Amino acid sequence: MKLCSFSKDGRASYGLIVPSGIVDLGRRLPEPTLRDFLASGDMGRAAALAGEAADHAFDAVEHAPVIPNPDKIICVGLNYHAHVQETGRTETANPVLFARYAGSQIGHGAALVKPRESDEFDYEGELAVIIGKEGRRISEADALDHVAGYACYNDASVRDWQKHTHQFMPGKTFAGTGAFGPWMVTADEIPDPTRLRLQTRLNGEVVQDTGVDLLITSIPRLIAYCSTILPLLPGDVIVSGTPGGVGARRNPPLWMRDGDICEVEITGIGTLSNPVRAEA
Amino acid sequence: MKLCSFSKDGRASYGLIVPSGIVDLGRRLPEPTLRDFLASGDMGRAAALAGEAADHAFDAVEHAPVIPNPDKIICVGLNYHAHVQETGRTETANPVLFARYAGSQIGHGAALVKPRESDEFDYEGELAVIIGKEGRRISEADALDHVAGYACYNDASVRDWQKHTHQFMPGKTFAGTGAFGPWMVTADEIPDPTRLRLQTRLNGEVVQDTGVDLLITSIPRLIAYCSTILPLLPGDVIVSGTPGGVGARRNPPLWMRDGDICEVEITGIGTLSNPVRAEA
Repeated sequence: MKLCSFSKDGRASYGLIVPSGIVDLGRRLPEPTLRDFLASGDMGRAAALAGEAADHAFDAVEHAPVIPNPDKIICVGLNYHAHVQETGRTETANPVLFARYAGSQIGHGAALVKPRESDEFDYEGELAVIIGKEGRRISEADALDHVAGYACYNDASVRDWQKHTHQFMPGKTFAGTGAFGPWMVTADEIPDPTRLRLQTRLNGEVVQDTGVDLLITSIPRLIAYCSTILPLLPGDVIVSGTPGGVGARRNPPLWMRDGDICEVEITGIGTLSNPVRAEA
Repeated sequence: MKLCSFSKDGRASYGLIVPSGIVDLGRRLPEPTLRDFLASGDMGRAAALAGEAADHAFDAVEHAPVIPNPDKIICVGLNYHAHVQETGRTETANPVLFARYAGSQIGHGAALVKPRESDEFDYEGELAVIIGKEGRRISEADALDHVAGYACYNDASVRDWQKHTHQFMPGKTFAGTGAFGPWMVTADEIPDPTRLRLQTRLNGEVVQDTGVDLLITSIPRLIAYCSTILPLLPGDVIVSGTPGGVGARRNPPLWMRDGDICEVEITGIGTLSNPVRAEA
């Protein structure tokens, strides 16, 4: 089952992807947002509508971030060997975590915004893990039971601001830089996320390509570690890390520019595509 | 004017501090939270109630974090020379920023929770700046016009988790570690925050004591820098950094333990007091 968030004629809603488009769940169910729907724990109500005709063509809505209003977006850095190597850093026993604020997110098709303060605007294709069930100190064995689904994420980074100090956050949360979509695929359809393959393309050229089995800290261990710190809630997002191939570590560097198209494709999920727009 | 958030008999509300206690604004005004009230921009409606009798005695409510539901909590690290020196780090030209999630916050009087995973639980007394007016790329000259008020913050830190990797966030957002209160004092009463004095006491002993004029990155510059990254919204919190004297850098280290009382006092604001409770 594929679930998305969108707005149509100025009304924010969420929906179920069917062959003819989007079944508008916000119109049919009491929960106002996809986050609230996930929190209800009753996903069967969406599945039961899979035979309905679409209310909207897929391209006739403005796509929102899959979860526009998560309580937490937890980003994982340096979580593929090839990326650790290209940065010249060493691996750590525990995951490298930093935050992105929800207001920095955009949906499928919306512009990734290169801020006027920087020319070092870089892509980072990633697998996003969306929590479905609250938990604290979740064991690795139980962790995947807390996952509602998976989506593509482009954790676009403003590299010079990321390096202003030793803390990454400023370069990781500029407005219009966290692309999240095009939808989430529910976890029942992805029993083993390590079998997924992730590819990032800039203007059609493959710039990142990895199996998700190469994650250094696995998804169950990320969930266990993060939920030790504080409770994970329905709709929380763990952005699990980017593989090798980022633009900053190429020679010469490869930066995203106005008019580029950046895509993140994950097998079994789909393709998140966003144009790049440079601020005037 | 002093504004606070609280719950009473299970109902979340916010209020105005008057000599006899708290005037319940949540009962009298349409906005359901202090964040929404700040966003209204019409603070005069609270000031007009200053002559009312209190609805609740100050000690008869459960105090909540001043803003329980901020869109963003932006923490500033290493922002006093004495603290930079004691950590052995060097100063950076730009502020060191990391995040705390809202779910980690507690109010005045609630327990600071030492997690069972660590014995390295440290205090950090700080001045919190609460945004009142939305803005992007706010100039330093205009910055203080965007401040709704100021409060005390204890950015309690789990030091070993903070040092798991080079990114601080895991040790900075454990559940029950961000004490924020006892109230906010509106900015009209604090025209120049650099004239404030901040003191942290553990079991009555002074462990941190500084003038806020010693901030490396000033409050206007913090607002300008953060709002370059993404819009600041009403209710956003900038926790401006801790001075020298943290427990981790003492010899021997001074950690917070079950039964301790930690206080953060700022002149012109008041005293935030929290007991420490160790998780079983």
